[in-house]
Amino acid sequence: MIETSTNGESSKGYLEIFAIPGIPEIETGDDVAERILESALRSGIVLEDGDILVIAQKIVSKAEGCVYASEDVEATVFAEQMGKYTGHDPEYMELVLRHSRRIVRMAQGFVISQTHHGFVMANSGVDSSNSGARGRMVTLPDDPDKSARRIKESIEASTGRRIAVVISDTFGRPWRSGQVNMAIGIAGMRPMLDYRGLKDNDGREMKVTQIAVADELASAAELVSGKTKRLPVVIVRNYRFDPAPGTARELVRDEEHDIFK
Amino acid sequence: MIETSTNGESSKGYLEIFAIPGIPEIETGDDVAERILESALRSGIVLEDGDILVIAQKIVSKAEGCVYASEDVEATVFAEQMGKYTGHDPEYMELVLRHSRRIVRMAQGFVISQTHHGFVMANSGVDSSNSGARGRMVTLPDDPDKSARRIKESIEASTGRRIAVVISDTFGRPWRSGQVNMAIGIAGMRPMLDYRGLKDNDGREMKVTQIAVADELASAAELVSGKTKRLPVVIVRNYRFDPAPGTARELVRDEEHDIFK
Repeated sequence: MIETSTNGESSKGYLEIFAIPGIPEIETGDDVAERILESALRSGIVLEDGDILVIAQKIVSKAEGCVYASEDVEATVFAEQMGKYTGHDPEYMELVLRHSRRIVRMAQGFVISQTHHGFVMANSGVDSSNSGARGRMVTLPDDPDKSARRIKESIEASTGRRIAVVISDTFGRPWRSGQVNMAIGIAGMRPMLDYRGLKDNDGREMKVTQIAVADELASAAELVSGKTKRLPVVIVRNYRFDPAPGTARELVRDEEHDIFK
Repeated sequence: MIETSTNGESSKGYLEIFAIPGIPEIETGDDVAERILESALRSGIVLEDGDILVIAQKIVSKAEGCVYASEDVEATVFAEQMGKYTGHDPEYMELVLRHSRRIVRMAQGFVISQTHHGFVMANSGVDSSNSGARGRMVTLPDDPDKSARRIKESIEASTGRRIAVVISDTFGRPWRSGQVNMAIGIAGMRPMLDYRGLKDNDGREMKVTQIAVADELASAAELVSGKTKRLPVVIVRNYRFDPAPGTARELVRDEEHDIFK
Protein backbone atom coordinates (compact mmCIF):
# COMPACT_ATOMS: atom_id res chain seq x y z
CA MET A 1 0.00 0.00 0.00
CA ILE A 2 1.40 3.39 -0.96
CA GLU A 3 0.65 6.14 1.50
CA THR A 4 1.32 9.13 -0.67
CA SER A 5 -0.47 11.30 1.82
CA THR A 6 2.20 10.73 4.42
CA ASN A 7 5.31 9.94 2.46
CA GLY A 8 5.66 13.30 0.82
CA GLU A 9 5.69 15.22 4.03
CA SER A 10 5.99 13.11 7.12
CA SER A 11 6.77 16.19 9.17
CA LYS A 12 6.57 19.93 8.87
CA GLY A 13 10.32 19.81 9.23
CA TYR A 14 10.60 21.17 12.75
CA LEU A 15 9.90 18.62 15.43
CA GLU A 16 9.45 19.66 19.05
CA ILE A 17 9.69 17.12 21.83
CA PHE A 18 8.97 18.04 25.44
CA ALA A 19 7.67 16.42 28.60
CA ILE A 20 4.53 17.21 30.55
CA PRO A 21 5.99 17.82 34.00
CA GLY A 22 4.30 17.02 37.28
CA ILE A 23 2.55 13.75 36.41
CA PRO A 24 1.73 12.35 39.87
CA GLU A 25 2.47 8.80 41.04
CA ILE A 26 -0.19 6.70 39.32
CA GLU A 27 -2.16 4.11 41.30
CA THR A 28 -4.57 1.34 40.34
CA GLY A 29 -7.82 2.79 39.06
CA ASP A 30 -6.38 6.22 38.21
CA ASP A 31 -7.56 7.82 34.99
CA VAL A 32 -4.31 8.33 33.06
CA ALA A 33 -5.90 10.70 30.54
CA GLU A 34 -7.23 12.92 33.34
CA ARG A 35 -3.91 12.96 35.19
CA ILE A 36 -2.14 13.95 31.97
CA LEU A 37 -4.57 16.77 31.22
CA GLU A 38 -4.41 18.10 34.80
CA SER A 39 -0.61 18.15 34.67
CA ALA A 40 -0.62 19.83 31.27
CA LEU A 41 -3.02 22.47 32.53
CA ARG A 42 -0.86 23.20 35.58
CA SER A 43 2.14 23.71 33.29
CA GLY A 44 0.26 25.83 30.79
CA ILE A 45 0.68 23.20 28.06
CA VAL A 46 -2.17 23.27 25.55
CA LEU A 47 -2.52 20.23 23.33
CA GLU A 48 -2.65 20.84 19.58
CA ASP A 49 -4.12 18.86 16.70
CA GLY A 50 -1.55 16.34 15.57
CA ASP A 51 0.29 16.09 18.88
CA ILE A 52 1.59 12.61 19.64
CA LEU A 53 1.63 11.66 23.32
CA VAL A 54 4.30 9.11 24.12
CA ILE A 55 3.42 7.50 27.44
CA ALA A 56 5.65 5.22 29.51
CA GLN A 57 4.18 1.74 29.82
CA LYS A 58 4.63 1.76 33.57
CA ILE A 59 2.02 4.38 34.39
CA VAL A 60 -0.51 2.69 32.11
CA SER A 61 0.18 -0.67 33.78
CA LYS A 62 -0.16 0.82 37.25
CA ALA A 63 -3.46 2.50 36.38
CA GLU A 64 -4.74 -0.82 35.06
CA GLY A 65 -3.72 -2.68 38.19
CA CYS A 66 -0.94 -4.75 36.60
CA VAL A 67 0.92 -4.55 39.91
CA TYR A 68 1.87 -7.49 42.12
CA ALA A 69 3.35 -7.77 45.59
CA SER A 70 5.85 -10.59 46.05
CA GLU A 71 3.82 -12.12 48.87
CA ASP A 72 0.72 -12.36 46.67
CA VAL A 73 2.44 -14.40 43.97
CA GLU A 74 2.71 -18.13 44.52
CA ALA A 75 5.63 -19.53 42.61
CA THR A 76 5.40 -23.00 41.14
CA VAL A 77 8.26 -25.44 41.63
CA PHE A 78 9.10 -24.87 37.98
CA ALA A 79 9.36 -21.08 38.50
CA GLU A 80 11.53 -21.70 41.57
CA GLN A 81 13.91 -23.85 39.58
CA MET A 82 14.03 -21.43 36.69
CA GLY A 83 14.56 -18.60 39.16
CA LYS A 84 17.57 -20.43 40.57
CA TYR A 85 18.95 -20.94 37.11
CA THR A 86 18.47 -17.33 35.98
CA GLY A 87 19.17 -15.64 39.28
CA HIS A 88 15.67 -14.19 39.71
CA ASP A 89 13.34 -14.38 42.72
CA PRO A 90 10.86 -17.26 42.33
CA GLU A 91 7.88 -14.88 42.47
CA TYR A 92 9.39 -12.64 39.82
CA MET A 93 10.14 -15.66 37.65
CA GLU A 94 6.56 -16.87 38.15
CA LEU A 95 5.19 -13.58 36.81
CA VAL A 96 7.56 -13.68 33.85
CA LEU A 97 6.38 -17.20 32.99
CA ARG A 98 2.72 -16.27 33.32
CA HIS A 99 3.25 -13.39 30.90
CA SER A 100 5.25 -15.38 28.36
CA ARG A 101 4.14 -17.22 25.28
CA ARG A 102 7.61 -18.77 24.95
CA ILE A 103 11.17 -18.42 26.17
CA VAL A 104 13.48 -17.25 23.38
CA ARG A 105 16.80 -17.38 25.26
CA MET A 106 17.64 -17.98 28.88
CA ALA A 107 20.88 -17.96 30.84
CA GLN A 108 22.40 -16.92 34.14
CA GLY A 109 21.09 -13.43 34.83
CA PHE A 110 18.47 -13.07 32.14
CA VAL A 111 15.42 -14.36 30.34
CA ILE A 112 14.44 -13.17 26.88
CA SER A 113 10.89 -14.18 26.19
CA GLN A 114 7.95 -13.46 23.94
CA THR A 115 4.91 -11.91 25.57
CA HIS A 116 1.37 -13.01 24.79
CA HIS A 117 1.11 -9.88 22.61
CA GLY A 118 4.11 -11.11 20.61
CA PHE A 119 6.83 -8.74 21.83
CA VAL A 120 10.26 -10.29 22.38
CA MET A 121 11.92 -8.62 25.33
CA ALA A 122 13.77 -9.17 28.60
CA ASN A 123 11.62 -10.89 31.22
CA SER A 124 8.46 -10.34 29.15
CA GLY A 125 8.54 -6.75 30.32
CA VAL A 126 7.96 -7.60 33.99
CA ASP A 127 9.77 -4.93 35.97
CA SER A 128 10.53 -4.29 39.60
CA SER A 129 12.25 -0.90 39.22
CA ASN A 130 10.22 2.29 39.59
CA SER A 131 7.28 0.10 40.59
CA GLY A 132 6.33 2.46 43.41
CA ALA A 133 7.55 0.32 46.30
CA ARG A 134 10.16 -2.31 47.04
CA GLY A 135 8.90 -5.83 46.38
CA ARG A 136 6.28 -4.63 43.91
CA MET A 137 6.38 -5.85 40.34
CA VAL A 138 4.69 -4.34 37.32
CA THR A 139 3.63 -6.29 34.22
CA LEU A 140 2.67 -5.02 30.78
CA PRO A 141 -0.95 -4.00 30.10
CA ASP A 142 -3.08 -6.87 28.79
CA ASP A 143 -3.77 -5.00 25.55
CA PRO A 144 -1.56 -1.91 25.17
CA ASP A 145 -3.22 -0.94 21.85
CA LYS A 146 -6.55 -0.86 23.61
CA SER A 147 -5.04 1.15 26.47
CA ALA A 148 -3.66 3.65 23.93
CA ARG A 149 -7.04 3.89 22.22
CA ARG A 150 -8.83 4.51 25.49
CA ILE A 151 -6.43 7.28 26.53
CA LYS A 152 -6.55 8.85 23.06
CA GLU A 153 -10.34 8.90 22.97
CA SER A 154 -10.62 10.28 26.47
CA ILE A 155 -8.15 13.10 25.76
CA GLU A 156 -9.83 13.88 22.45
CA ALA A 157 -13.23 14.00 24.13
CA SER A 158 -11.93 16.43 26.78
CA THR A 159 -9.90 18.70 24.52
CA GLY A 160 -11.54 18.50 21.10
CA ARG A 161 -8.05 17.96 19.66
CA ARG A 162 -7.14 15.08 17.38
CA ILE A 163 -4.06 13.35 18.73
CA ALA A 164 -2.18 10.06 18.60
CA VAL A 165 -0.88 8.00 21.50
CA VAL A 166 2.20 5.77 21.68
CA ILE A 167 2.80 3.57 24.74
CA SER A 168 6.51 2.87 25.05
CA ASP A 169 8.76 0.44 26.83
CA THR A 170 12.48 -0.29 26.94
CA PHE A 171 13.96 -3.08 24.80
CA GLY A 172 17.38 -4.62 24.42
CA ARG A 173 18.53 -5.63 20.95
CA PRO A 174 20.50 -8.58 19.59
CA TRP A 175 23.98 -7.64 18.37
CA ARG A 176 23.86 -4.12 19.78
CA SER A 177 24.70 -2.96 23.28
CA GLY A 178 22.35 -0.72 25.18
CA GLN A 179 18.61 -0.47 25.19
CA VAL A 180 16.18 1.82 23.37
CA ASN A 181 12.52 2.61 23.77
CA MET A 182 10.02 1.11 21.33
CA ALA A 183 6.25 1.11 20.96
CA ILE A 184 4.07 -1.56 22.60
CA GLY A 185 0.76 0.20 21.98
CA ILE A 186 -0.47 2.92 19.64
CA ALA A 187 -3.68 4.68 18.66
CA GLY A 188 -4.54 7.24 16.04
CA MET A 189 -1.73 6.48 13.61
CA ARG A 190 -0.13 3.70 11.66
CA PRO A 191 2.98 2.15 13.23
CA MET A 192 4.88 2.09 9.96
CA LEU A 193 5.45 4.48 7.09
CA ASP A 194 5.24 2.49 3.90
CA TYR A 195 7.66 3.21 1.04
CA ARG A 196 6.98 0.01 -0.89
CA GLY A 197 6.46 0.69 -4.56
CA LEU A 198 7.78 4.25 -4.28
CA LYS A 199 10.76 5.37 -6.33
CA ASP A 200 13.94 6.79 -4.84
CA ASN A 201 15.52 10.08 -5.91
CA ASP A 202 17.06 8.34 -8.95
CA GLY A 203 13.85 6.64 -10.06
CA ARG A 204 14.79 3.21 -8.70
CA GLU A 205 12.48 1.16 -6.54
CA MET A 206 13.30 1.82 -2.86
CA LYS A 207 15.22 -0.87 -1.02
CA VAL A 208 13.92 0.50 2.24
CA THR A 209 10.37 -0.64 2.53
CA GLN A 210 8.73 0.22 5.81
CA ILE A 211 9.97 2.53 8.53
CA ALA A 212 8.76 1.72 12.04
CA VAL A 213 7.95 5.33 12.92
CA ALA A 214 6.14 4.33 16.13
CA ASP A 215 9.40 2.87 17.43
CA GLU A 216 11.33 5.94 16.30
CA LEU A 217 8.81 8.15 18.11
CA ALA A 218 9.24 6.10 21.29
CA SER A 219 13.03 6.38 21.01
CA ALA A 220 12.87 10.12 20.35
CA ALA A 221 10.67 10.64 23.41
CA GLU A 222 13.07 8.68 25.60
CA LEU A 223 15.74 11.30 24.93
CA VAL A 224 13.52 13.73 26.86
CA SER A 225 11.96 11.47 29.48
CA GLY A 226 15.11 9.63 30.56
CA LYS A 227 14.90 7.01 33.25
CA THR A 228 15.19 8.86 36.54
CA LYS A 229 13.32 12.07 35.96
CA ARG A 230 9.68 11.11 36.63
CA LEU A 231 8.66 12.29 33.17
CA PRO A 232 6.46 9.47 31.89
CA VAL A 233 4.56 11.57 29.34
CA VAL A 234 6.21 13.30 26.39
CA ILE A 235 4.64 15.28 23.56
CA VAL A 236 6.02 15.03 20.02
CA ARG A 237 4.73 18.05 18.12
CA ASN A 238 4.81 18.76 14.38
CA TYR A 239 5.27 15.20 13.22
CA ARG A 240 2.83 14.92 10.37
CA PHE A 241 1.09 11.55 10.17
CA ASP A 242 -1.85 9.91 8.57
CA PRO A 243 -4.49 9.62 11.34
CA ALA A 244 -5.48 6.13 10.19
CA PRO A 245 -6.12 3.38 12.71
CA GLY A 246 -3.12 1.22 13.52
CA THR A 247 -1.78 -1.06 16.23
CA ALA A 248 1.63 -1.81 17.69
CA ARG A 249 0.88 -5.49 17.15
CA GLU A 250 1.56 -4.85 13.47
CA LEU A 251 5.18 -4.31 14.55
CA VAL A 252 5.43 -7.94 15.62
CA ARG A 253 7.03 -9.85 12.77
CA ASP A 254 4.80 -12.75 11.87
CA GLU A 255 6.31 -16.16 12.47
CA GLU A 256 6.45 -17.00 8.81
CA HIS A 257 8.86 -14.10 8.20
CA ASP A 258 10.75 -14.45 11.46
CA ILE A 259 14.15 -15.93 10.73
CA PHE A 260 15.37 -15.43 14.29
CA LYS A 261 12.83 -17.54 16.13
CA MET B 1 30.83 3.93 35.78
CA ILE B 2 28.25 6.42 36.99
CA GLU B 3 27.85 9.49 34.85
CA THR B 4 26.13 11.75 37.28
CA SER B 5 26.90 14.71 35.06
CA THR B 6 24.63 13.44 32.32
CA ASN B 7 22.08 11.32 34.12
CA GLY B 8 20.55 14.10 36.11
CA GLU B 9 19.71 16.21 33.12
CA SER B 10 20.17 14.51 29.82
CA SER B 11 18.17 17.24 28.12
CA LYS B 12 16.96 20.71 28.90
CA GLY B 13 13.50 19.26 28.42
CA TYR B 14 12.68 20.81 25.08
CA LEU B 15 14.23 19.07 22.12
CA GLU B 16 14.16 20.62 18.66
CA ILE B 17 14.84 18.52 15.59
CA PHE B 18 15.07 20.07 12.14
CA ALA B 19 16.80 19.46 8.84
CA ILE B 20 19.36 21.61 7.07
CA PRO B 21 17.71 22.02 3.67
CA GLY B 22 19.49 22.30 0.35
CA ILE B 23 22.39 19.90 0.89
CA PRO B 24 23.60 19.33 -2.70
CA GLU B 25 24.23 15.94 -4.29
CA ILE B 26 27.54 14.83 -2.78
CA GLU B 27 30.30 13.44 -5.00
CA THR B 28 33.60 11.73 -4.31
CA GLY B 29 36.07 14.15 -2.78
CA ASP B 30 33.46 16.63 -1.57
CA ASP B 31 34.03 18.16 1.84
CA VAL B 32 30.88 17.16 3.74
CA ALA B 33 31.49 19.64 6.56
CA GLU B 34 31.81 22.52 4.07
CA ARG B 35 28.68 21.50 2.17
CA ILE B 36 26.75 21.34 5.44
CA LEU B 37 27.93 24.77 6.58
CA GLU B 38 27.18 26.35 3.18
CA SER B 39 23.66 24.94 3.21
CA ALA B 40 23.10 26.06 6.79
CA LEU B 41 24.29 29.57 5.92
CA ARG B 42 21.95 29.76 2.93
CA SER B 43 19.04 28.80 5.19
CA GLY B 44 20.00 31.16 7.98
CA ILE B 45 20.69 28.27 10.35
CA VAL B 46 23.34 29.13 12.94
CA LEU B 47 24.90 26.21 14.77
CA GLU B 48 24.88 26.37 18.56
CA ASP B 49 27.05 24.78 21.21
CA GLY B 50 25.67 21.35 21.99
CA ASP B 51 23.98 20.82 18.63
CA ILE B 52 24.09 17.22 17.43
CA LEU B 53 24.35 16.78 13.67
CA VAL B 54 22.82 13.52 12.49
CA ILE B 55 24.17 12.77 9.03
CA ALA B 56 22.94 10.08 6.65
CA GLN B 57 25.62 7.49 5.94
CA LYS B 58 25.11 7.79 2.23
CA ILE B 59 26.50 11.29 1.78
CA VAL B 60 29.53 10.43 3.91
CA SER B 61 30.14 7.29 1.85
CA LYS B 62 29.79 9.19 -1.40
CA ALA B 63 32.23 11.88 -0.27
CA GLU B 64 34.72 9.18 0.68
CA GLY B 65 34.39 7.46 -2.68
CA CYS B 66 32.66 4.31 -1.42
CA VAL B 67 30.78 4.17 -4.72
CA TYR B 68 30.97 1.38 -7.28
CA ALA B 69 29.64 0.97 -10.79
CA SER B 70 28.38 -2.49 -11.66
CA GLU B 71 30.77 -2.80 -14.60
CA ASP B 72 33.79 -2.09 -12.37
CA VAL B 73 33.04 -4.94 -9.97
CA GLU B 74 34.20 -8.40 -10.97
CA ALA B 75 32.08 -11.02 -9.29
CA THR B 76 33.66 -14.28 -8.23
CA VAL B 77 31.93 -17.53 -9.09
CA PHE B 78 31.02 -17.78 -5.42
CA ALA B 79 29.33 -14.35 -5.51
CA GLU B 80 27.49 -15.38 -8.67
CA GLN B 81 26.15 -18.48 -7.01
CA MET B 82 25.18 -16.66 -3.86
CA GLY B 83 23.56 -13.98 -5.99
CA LYS B 84 21.44 -16.62 -7.68
CA TYR B 85 20.43 -18.04 -4.33
CA THR B 86 19.53 -14.68 -2.76
CA GLY B 87 18.16 -13.00 -5.87
CA HIS B 88 20.83 -10.29 -6.03
CA ASP B 89 23.00 -9.22 -8.98
CA PRO B 90 26.39 -10.96 -8.88
CA GLU B 91 28.24 -7.63 -8.65
CA TYR B 92 26.05 -6.48 -5.80
CA MET B 93 26.56 -9.79 -4.03
CA GLU B 94 30.31 -9.46 -4.59
CA LEU B 95 30.36 -6.09 -2.84
CA VAL B 96 28.26 -7.45 0.04
CA LEU B 97 30.72 -10.32 0.50
CA ARG B 98 33.75 -8.03 0.36
CA HIS B 99 32.23 -5.88 3.09
CA SER B 100 31.18 -8.75 5.34
CA ARG B 101 32.99 -10.40 8.21
CA ARG B 102 30.39 -13.18 8.26
CA ILE B 103 26.92 -14.06 7.00
CA VAL B 104 24.43 -14.20 9.86
CA ARG B 105 21.35 -15.37 7.90
CA MET B 106 20.72 -15.81 4.21
CA ALA B 107 17.67 -16.79 2.21
CA GLN B 108 15.80 -16.03 -0.99
CA GLY B 109 15.67 -12.25 -1.22
CA PHE B 110 18.01 -11.23 1.54
CA VAL B 111 21.36 -11.47 3.25
CA ILE B 112 21.90 -10.42 6.85
CA SER B 113 25.58 -10.07 7.50
CA GLN B 114 28.07 -8.56 9.89
CA THR B 115 30.26 -5.80 8.54
CA HIS B 116 33.96 -5.54 9.27
CA HIS B 117 33.07 -2.83 11.81
CA GLY B 118 30.80 -5.34 13.57
CA PHE B 119 27.36 -4.06 12.56
CA VAL B 120 24.77 -6.73 11.76
CA MET B 121 22.52 -5.47 8.98
CA ALA B 122 20.94 -6.29 5.64
CA ASN B 123 23.52 -6.72 2.88
CA SER B 124 26.28 -5.27 5.08
CA GLY B 125 24.82 -1.87 4.35
CA VAL B 126 25.58 -2.00 0.62
CA ASP B 127 22.86 -0.01 -1.08
CA SER B 128 21.83 0.72 -4.62
CA SER B 129 18.95 3.11 -3.89
CA ASN B 130 19.57 6.85 -3.82
CA SER B 131 23.10 6.12 -5.00
CA GLY B 132 22.99 8.95 -7.52
CA ALA B 133 22.62 6.84 -10.65
CA ARG B 134 21.22 3.50 -11.74
CA GLY B 135 23.75 0.71 -11.46
CA ARG B 136 25.77 2.53 -8.83
CA MET B 137 26.23 0.96 -5.44
CA VAL B 138 27.28 2.62 -2.22
CA THR B 139 29.08 0.88 0.65
CA LEU B 140 29.57 1.99 4.25
CA PRO B 141 32.54 4.21 5.12
CA ASP B 142 35.63 2.25 6.14
CA ASP B 143 35.64 3.84 9.60
CA PRO B 144 32.43 5.77 10.28
CA ASP B 145 33.66 6.90 13.72
CA LYS B 146 36.69 8.46 12.08
CA SER B 147 34.44 10.07 9.44
CA ALA B 148 32.28 11.52 12.23
CA ARG B 149 35.35 12.84 14.04
CA ARG B 150 36.68 14.49 10.92
CA ILE B 151 33.37 16.22 10.15
CA LYS B 152 32.98 17.29 13.77
CA GLU B 153 36.46 18.77 13.97
CA SER B 154 36.11 20.57 10.68
CA ILE B 155 32.76 22.11 11.65
CA GLU B 156 34.09 23.09 15.07
CA ALA B 157 37.15 24.71 13.51
CA SER B 158 34.96 26.74 11.13
CA THR B 159 32.27 27.77 13.59
CA GLY B 160 33.94 27.80 17.00
CA ARG B 161 30.95 25.81 18.28
CA ARG B 162 31.26 22.56 20.19
CA ILE B 163 29.05 19.96 18.54
CA ALA B 164 28.57 16.22 18.24
CA VAL B 165 28.09 14.17 15.09
CA VAL B 166 26.10 10.97 14.57
CA ILE B 167 26.31 9.10 11.25
CA SER B 168 23.14 7.07 10.77
CA ASP B 169 21.95 4.19 8.65
CA THR B 170 18.79 2.12 8.38
CA PHE B 171 18.53 -1.25 10.14
CA GLY B 172 15.97 -4.04 10.23
CA ARG B 173 15.38 -5.78 13.54
CA PRO B 174 14.72 -9.39 14.47
CA TRP B 175 11.18 -10.02 15.71
CA ARG B 176 9.89 -6.57 14.75
CA SER B 177 8.59 -5.42 11.39
CA GLY B 178 9.87 -2.25 9.83
CA GLN B 179 13.24 -0.58 9.93
CA VAL B 180 14.64 2.22 12.08
CA ASN B 181 17.72 4.39 11.87
CA MET B 182 20.65 3.67 14.16
CA ALA B 183 24.15 5.06 14.63
CA ILE B 184 27.14 3.66 12.75
CA GLY B 185 29.55 6.45 13.64
CA ILE B 186 29.71 9.14 16.31
CA ALA B 187 32.01 11.85 17.57
CA GLY B 188 31.89 14.23 20.49
CA MET B 189 29.65 12.17 22.75
CA ARG B 190 29.27 8.77 24.33
CA PRO B 191 26.97 6.34 22.49
CA MET B 192 25.30 5.16 25.69
CA LEU B 193 23.95 6.80 28.81
CA ASP B 194 24.97 4.68 31.75
CA TYR B 195 22.53 4.08 34.59
CA ARG B 196 24.39 1.17 36.14
CA GLY B 197 24.70 1.56 39.90
CA LEU B 198 22.12 4.35 40.00
CA LYS B 199 18.98 4.00 42.10
CA ASP B 200 15.47 4.28 40.71
CA ASN B 201 12.77 6.55 42.12
CA ASP B 202 12.08 4.01 44.90
CA GLY B 203 15.72 3.56 45.88
CA ARG B 204 16.12 0.20 44.10
CA GLU B 205 19.00 -0.55 41.78
CA MET B 206 17.90 0.18 38.19
CA LYS B 207 17.14 -2.80 35.99
CA VAL B 208 17.75 -0.65 32.94
CA THR B 209 21.46 -0.31 32.60
CA GLN B 210 22.57 1.50 29.50
CA ILE B 211 20.47 3.46 27.04
CA ALA B 212 21.82 3.61 23.48
CA VAL B 213 21.17 7.32 23.06
CA ALA B 214 23.15 7.50 19.81
CA ASP B 215 20.66 5.06 18.27
CA GLU B 216 17.73 7.00 19.71
CA LEU B 217 19.15 10.22 18.23
CA ALA B 218 19.48 8.55 14.82
CA SER B 219 15.87 7.33 15.04
CA ALA B 220 14.61 10.73 16.15
CA ALA B 221 16.37 12.42 13.22
CA GLU B 222 14.84 9.97 10.75
CA LEU B 223 11.40 11.27 11.67
CA VAL B 224 12.47 14.57 10.10
CA SER B 225 14.72 13.41 7.27
CA GLY B 226 12.47 10.66 5.89
CA LYS B 227 13.60 8.65 2.91
CA THR B 228 12.55 10.62 -0.15
CA LYS B 229 13.10 14.20 0.87
CA ARG B 230 16.80 14.77 0.17
CA LEU B 231 17.37 15.84 3.76
CA PRO B 232 20.51 13.95 4.76
CA VAL B 233 21.52 16.29 7.60
CA VAL B 234 19.41 16.90 10.69
CA ILE B 235 20.16 18.97 13.78
CA VAL B 236 19.07 17.79 17.22
CA ARG B 237 19.15 20.83 19.49
CA ASN B 238 18.90 21.01 23.30
CA TYR B 239 19.87 17.43 24.00
CA ARG B 240 22.30 17.76 26.86
CA PHE B 241 25.18 15.31 26.71
CA ASP B 242 28.58 14.73 28.17
CA PRO B 243 31.06 15.79 25.45
CA ALA B 244 33.33 12.85 26.20
CA PRO B 245 34.91 10.87 23.38
CA GLY B 246 32.92 7.85 22.25
CA THR B 247 32.51 5.57 19.27
CA ALA B 248 29.62 3.77 17.63
CA ARG B 249 31.71 0.61 17.74
CA GLU B 250 30.92 0.50 21.46
CA LEU B 251 27.35 -0.25 20.36
CA VAL B 252 28.48 -3.55 18.86
CA ARG B 253 27.78 -6.26 21.43
CA ASP B 254 30.98 -8.17 22.03
CA GLU B 255 30.85 -11.81 20.98
CA GLU B 256 31.11 -13.05 24.53
CA HIS B 257 27.78 -11.38 25.39
CA ASP B 258 26.11 -12.05 22.07
CA ILE B 259 23.55 -14.78 22.54
CA PHE B 260 22.13 -14.36 19.04
CA LYS B 261 25.23 -15.12 17.01
